[in-house]
Amino acid sequence: MTRASEDGDRLVPWTRDRYGGVVVDVDHAAFVEAASTTETFDAALGRWTTRWRAEGARGVWLRVGLEKSELVSVARDRGFEFHHAEKTYVMMTAWLPEDEASTIPANASHQVGVGAFVWDEERKRVLLVQEKRGPASGRDLWKMPTGLVDAGEDVPDAAEREVLEETGIETTFEAVVGVRHGHFGLFGKSDLFFCVVLRVKPESTREIVTQESEIEAAKWASLDDFLDNPHVDRGSHAHELHERCARWASGERTAGIVAKRLPVGFGRPGEVYTYVTDDA
Amino acid sequence: MTRASEDGDRLVPWTRDRYGGVVVDVDHAAFVEAASTTETFDAALGRWTTRWRAEGARGVWLRVGLEKSELVSVARDRGFEFHHAEKTYVMMTAWLPEDEASTIPANASHQVGVGAFVWDEERKRVLLVQEKRGPASGRDLWKMPTGLVDAGEDVPDAAEREVLEETGIETTFEAVVGVRHGHFGLFGKSDLFFCVVLRVKPESTREIVTQESEIEAAKWASLDDFLDNPHVDRGSHAHELHERCARWASGERTAGIVAKRLPVGFGRPGEVYTYVTDDA
Repeated sequence: MTRASEDGDRLVPWTRDRYGGVVVDVDHAAFVEAASTTETFDAALGRWTTRWRAEGARGVWLRVGLEKSELVSVARDRGFEFHHAEKTYVMMTAWLPEDEASTIPANASHQVGVGAFVWDEERKRVLLVQEKRGPASGRDLWKMPTGLVDAGEDVPDAAEREVLEETGIETTFEAVVGVRHGHFGLFGKSDLFFCVVLRVKPESTREIVTQESEIEAAKWASLDDFLDNPHVDRGSHAHELHERCARWASGERTAGIVAKRLPVGFGRPGEVYTYVTDDA
Repeated sequence: MTRASEDGDRLVPWTRDRYGGVVVDVDHAAFVEAASTTETFDAALGRWTTRWRAEGARGVWLRVGLEKSELVSVARDRGFEFHHAEKTYVMMTAWLPEDEASTIPANASHQVGVGAFVWDEERKRVLLVQEKRGPASGRDLWKMPTGLVDAGEDVPDAAEREVLEETGIETTFEAVVGVRHGHFGLFGKSDLFFCVVLRVKPESTREIVTQESEIEAAKWASLDDFLDNPHVDRGSHAHELHERCARWASGERTAGIVAKRLPVGFGRPGEVYTYVTDDA
């Protein structure tokens, strides 16, 4: 429900969500006016908080734009803390009930990565790269192309995109061979790594064009070279995934997890990928 | 490498990372002194930035604690933007090279959820709940217990924990039946949903104790009741996952993805879960 029904359309710069929370509308005229100086914002936030408490509101969501970041310390002094941030804003939250633990949902907790086993079926070759920067650089480490899945992006698309960006090779997604869940992401986040098989498009050039900024070198290698990687410890998760990539390349389909594009359901529009074992 | 070797141990409050970046140490004495007022911090940040540029530094990471949030707008005026935030701090970044696109890694992009098909093998019953708040509430919707995987937490542990919290039932993880990748998370984030099979511990009580704050009701249902859910559209991703849960309950193992605990490898200590098809 929105407060508009009770207060008239433009009086209060907030709405109520389905969880009993308050979402402050920073584009609302009343907010813009209140936020014109730190003093008026402080006074307004005080009045608003009193009212939210009286109405039994629970969590409050307050988005402070980078250009308004003078307001951050004002909100801090009124009991707000950080929740998450993107480049241009920081989301601050306050939990109002005094006799109940906060149920404000957690910030995003994971990065999702892809690693691509790029298989050229015609020439029985796999595509490997050396990275220019980061932990894998400077060690003569040949590895499958990897990258991050963006928010809003699907795993097959991310894998094909990364390979195209890093090497110029055009591919088609075939299967997930496994998912590794690690707990060594940036800033205490965890990471899920999808190891996928891509097949080189038959009509694609095999000529590699490396990405200057990230890739030191790239090459086509044999399956034996791929499996005999001195950096991949026997029995490790990477070894397991490499073996399954090779099994897929050899034609074995039980080593893979397929991507089914299915309706979201629950009365919601659209489709989503669901990764499941192959029924066939 | 750290700058300490060049400048002496306590002179500059930053280190350099493997990507050519600068990580500002907010606990360093020189930082604490500079940050004592917004004016001294502004002057220091100006001097430091000049030096970082001269040394060819790339990205700069600046963590501003909630208690120091007066400094946020100072850093903004010096060209910093937000990267991410947790409750007690906001991380700000600046990209220094003028002739090169930023390679500062993205903020965490995903939330990871679990849904648990809790199977009581002895009584051939599955555990269902109704939620008190949120989109699934108020619709007479019986569903499998769900919850968020914390950063640093593994999927099997998260599933067992959520079921115990919501219903008091003790379970053991058996398999992942599928992973749904959605793009309707909070604040533009995406979400990965692991649908897993848990088995009720043979010695566990079957008596349900619902979590007051989140769960409206919970019950044991038959497999037929579970599959005949009027809220689950035929052919949707949820329908697909429900069918596979039922197949697992019926003893079919090809419907599932196993969790292998394997060494991290690459010379790093520890083990990680890797989710792959069942070899057996």
